[in-house]
Amino acid sequence: MDQILQSFSVNFNYKVVFTEQIFSNENAVLSGLLISSSSRSKLLFVIDKGVLDHHPSLERQIRQKWNGIKNIELIQDFIITDGGEAVKNSTVLFDQIIQSIDTHTIDRHSYIVAIGGGAVLDVVGYAAAVAHRGIRHIRIPSTVLAQNDSGVGVKNGINYKGKKNFLGTFAPPFAVINDSHFLTTLSDRHWRSGIAEAIKVSLIKDAEFFNWLELNATALNNRDLDAMKQLIRRCAELHLQHIAGGDPFEKGSSRPLDFGHWSAHKLEQLSGFDILHGEAVAIGMALDTMYSTLSGKLPEQDCKRILSLLRTLGFSVTHPLLSNASAKVLEGLNEFREHLGGELTIMLLNTIGKGEEVHEMKEELILQSASKLAAHGK
Amino acid sequence: MDQILQSFSVNFNYKVVFTEQIFSNENAVLSGLLISSSSRSKLLFVIDKGVLDHHPSLERQIRQKWNGIKNIELIQDFIITDGGEAVKNSTVLFDQIIQSIDTHTIDRHSYIVAIGGGAVLDVVGYAAAVAHRGIRHIRIPSTVLAQNDSGVGVKNGINYKGKKNFLGTFAPPFAVINDSHFLTTLSDRHWRSGIAEAIKVSLIKDAEFFNWLELNATALNNRDLDAMKQLIRRCAELHLQHIAGGDPFEKGSSRPLDFGHWSAHKLEQLSGFDILHGEAVAIGMALDTMYSTLSGKLPEQDCKRILSLLRTLGFSVTHPLLSNASAKVLEGLNEFREHLGGELTIMLLNTIGKGEEVHEMKEELILQSASKLAAHGK
Repeated sequence: MDQILQSFSVNFNYKVVFTEQIFSNENAVLSGLLISSSSRSKLLFVIDKGVLDHHPSLERQIRQKWNGIKNIELIQDFIITDGGEAVKNSTVLFDQIIQSIDTHTIDRHSYIVAIGGGAVLDVVGYAAAVAHRGIRHIRIPSTVLAQNDSGVGVKNGINYKGKKNFLGTFAPPFAVINDSHFLTTLSDRHWRSGIAEAIKVSLIKDAEFFNWLELNATALNNRDLDAMKQLIRRCAELHLQHIAGGDPFEKGSSRPLDFGHWSAHKLEQLSGFDILHGEAVAIGMALDTMYSTLSGKLPEQDCKRILSLLRTLGFSVTHPLLSNASAKVLEGLNEFREHLGGELTIMLLNTIGKGEEVHEMKEELILQSASKLAAHGK
Repeated sequence: MDQILQSFSVNFNYKVVFTEQIFSNENAVLSGLLISSSSRSKLLFVIDKGVLDHHPSLERQIRQKWNGIKNIELIQDFIITDGGEAVKNSTVLFDQIIQSIDTHTIDRHSYIVAIGGGAVLDVVGYAAAVAHRGIRHIRIPSTVLAQNDSGVGVKNGINYKGKKNFLGTFAPPFAVINDSHFLTTLSDRHWRSGIAEAIKVSLIKDAEFFNWLELNATALNNRDLDAMKQLIRRCAELHLQHIAGGDPFEKGSSRPLDFGHWSAHKLEQLSGFDILHGEAVAIGMALDTMYSTLSGKLPEQDCKRILSLLRTLGFSVTHPLLSNASAKVLEGLNEFREHLGGELTIMLLNTIGKGEEVHEMKEELILQSASKLAAHGK
């Protein structure tokens, strides 16, 4: 048999910048990124309506900043979209972006800039990744969750046929700009929700960071912006390290930075996305923490500390769906297996800061974990 | 300004296998590829109807070979599709594949095997690339063109809003299997059409290969399968080297292995895809060869040899559209610029075996080149 083994590596680089008031006159971050990279480019903005509601001068600021700039053509038709998970459940926004790319002949050396929460960034990332086989996209995440987790990573996607992220790609962004000013106008619920992913990373990667979270829980509850900026910086850094050091496009059997997510995805969906992602992750982590302890992996003392931190930060550690629709929640395990491909792989905890992957979870023990959490209330 | 520079490399490997009668009992190529890579996988087949018409026992062979094989679940519902460029002009096949992935819970460790011409492979590749962010796909190209060019590469796509490959990704296949048996049933027109890409590669990369093509033109005209296998082997090899040695995902300004394609894409489209891709490429190469000579880059002697080889192999070197719709053909230059992004880059010839990239083409000289070719007839 005659064969050729094709083999090559592709290098990916992108900057994750931490700044404030990205569209103010003085802030040169975005123009620095653009001008250093291309001679003549178009710039298409897609903006989450939720961000505009709280920052009504944003559109004007962007136009002022970019009109008349040499080498840049600002596309005047901004795409303004609803935010939240619902935007991923249809192809409306995806189609709108593709249409705009067509109408304005946006090419591969142009930029699509998305400002918004994780859901909007996911849809824009997907559209940018497949149009002309990949247009540069710049993410400006507006929520804690997007700034410390999904927004700095390499995944995008939309939900399809009722399955989360059924369509999507691995496509590193051109750049990510984390602007802390957007965090000041988040609702308390969204502020808190994003903290869940930081707890997650600390639990499986960084015990020191968990200690820091315990020490700073009150500051975070009081919406201390400096504490939140530190949290985001550390969480994003750990996330980026995990991607670069592992299997960025998840080709093998190695897993993303994951804990408590199999049930979280299902809870979000079963609640019709009434439960925010971070809130679902908090419940999912509580469940898998309890499971880790009941299955003899995690010391009870650690379990208590984890549940206590979650409660201190205002998270619920249980949800009526876990008892009322437990069979449906358990389906989440199968969907998780299917989405990952092949074998089920679930992260449990050995101690705070150290996870262990298992390939089976016992349904009975999951239900027992859920009952114990329900019994403790909230 | 605080920033993190994220940087990582992703390794891609795939085998391009040259074999015969891949689904015969004795041939173990495909099972070797599968079994070495996964413990329990599903296998979804998508087959070009044109291939089935000429190989009516194919379906039965596949079922015999794969039913009851350990660790493999053959999905019984094969997807049978029309072939040809038309299949890329709608989302029907794409949707059908996504639906099947959903229905049969095909996961990322499963395989989608596509058997067919380049158009079918492109659509299947795209669907496989975006479902669950990438399902393994195996290409079994059935035409000369797909075996020596598109099928061994890393691109996929569908046409959308009237633009060729408007939606698509760069996604290396899991493996490519070039089965020479499929070539024996090609029409003369399709047999010949695929030779155009071999001429293309020889012109910009390999003068020796061009000499070989001249020497073997008669054998190729007589449908000598051994000559064709050699042609495909060398052409695929040069194509793979170009991808691995350059910029596989075309992120920079470097270009794919391209010559004569800007007008070829447009001619195909304007003819409603009556002109086959290879036929269009032959005309496009003749045009850019003449242009290279008229602009003083290419010796007239080389121009004559090239046109002569094209004619000997039965290609037309001109087309009524070039005079009747020349303005529309010239639009192809702009569309090419847009698709590549940024600057126009066109490959011209300095000599046989050596190209030179230019960033401008003079319309008048293009029209003059077209007239000269038309005057020579055919």
